[in-house]
Amino acid sequence: MSQSPGRKQENHKISRELFVLTYGALVAQLCKDYEKDEDVNTCLDRMGYGIGVRLIDDFLAHSAVKKCRSYSETADIIAQVAFKTYLGVTPSVSCSSAAGNEFSLILDKNPLVDFVEELPAERASLCYCNLLCGVIRGALEMVHLAAEVTFLQDRLKGDAVTEIGITFLRKPEDGKHKR
Amino acid sequence: MSQSPGRKQENHKISRELFVLTYGALVAQLCKDYEKDEDVNTCLDRMGYGIGVRLIDDFLAHSAVKKCRSYSETADIIAQVAFKTYLGVTPSVSCSSAAGNEFSLILDKNPLVDFVEELPAERASLCYCNLLCGVIRGALEMVHLAAEVTFLQDRLKGDAVTEIGITFLRKPEDGKHKR
Repeated sequence: MSQSPGRKQENHKISRELFVLTYGALVAQLCKDYEKDEDVNTCLDRMGYGIGVRLIDDFLAHSAVKKCRSYSETADIIAQVAFKTYLGVTPSVSCSSAAGNEFSLILDKNPLVDFVEELPAERASLCYCNLLCGVIRGALEMVHLAAEVTFLQDRLKGDAVTEIGITFLRKPEDGKHKR
Repeated sequence: MSQSPGRKQENHKISRELFVLTYGALVAQLCKDYEKDEDVNTCLDRMGYGIGVRLIDDFLAHSAVKKCRSYSETADIIAQVAFKTYLGVTPSVSCSSAAGNEFSLILDKNPLVDFVEELPAERASLCYCNLLCGVIRGALEMVHLAAEVTFLQDRLKGDAVTEIGITFLRKPEDGKHKR
């Protein structure tokens, strides 16, 4: 049962293809279970929330990230550390509100849809990757940050990029931005 | 959209935790959908089959594995290359029949159950990781090897190790074993 220390890092990485195909099987199953796209989206978000609630412990334990002092810093950490660690991609971040509580994570390439060409016509409202929104929401809630997380653009729906919008719902004491 | 060549390798790896938790969400959903463990097991196997059928292309494209000349060699490749690549673990392999067509992949540690402590009492017959059996079966079928793949032991059920049994159903022309 004991592992040599050198194996640990290696064992924490897996090939993305298996994940992407397994995620596809999950979405396909939910599409069988629920007729309405909205119900599939809600279910994916709820599942993601449950995952985020658990994943945050792993993230805090392994990422050496310190307490964020602003929403901007939090958004940067999500993009540059969390996405990088868990999905192997780094979205760009933009702040999209004067109030400084709305951010967009913009993915030129969405690793979760590697094997998906397009959504079927009867599933036009499906947010295929909605699990990610739930994961972010759940993880943020565990560090006492309430947020709404939704897809604003989706390349699967013909948009030029995939864009995840994060709206933080409460102002932290120190609301200054790094940028 | 273009990527520097150096990023490709990195982008094909993701953190295992997200996969393991997503897989857990999939199994939980199927347990909601199907009352009988056997139906969940069948569904996981079927999903895995569909994944294996697609994953084999990726495997052959990236692994530089040559045509196997025996079942023994095939079993070794599954353990040492496929499991290593896709799950970051290397099961040990043993041949368990005089006929040379039955093999066991033995996992001291099953990465898919990292966050699972034990099966609920009412799910005692659940083969939690049955997706893997389907993946192996589907991938083998794509290289013209019919096989039965089942869990023979499962640490989630109190066994000392997790053991996946592979029984090849047709004899290849050259049936010699490397070991």
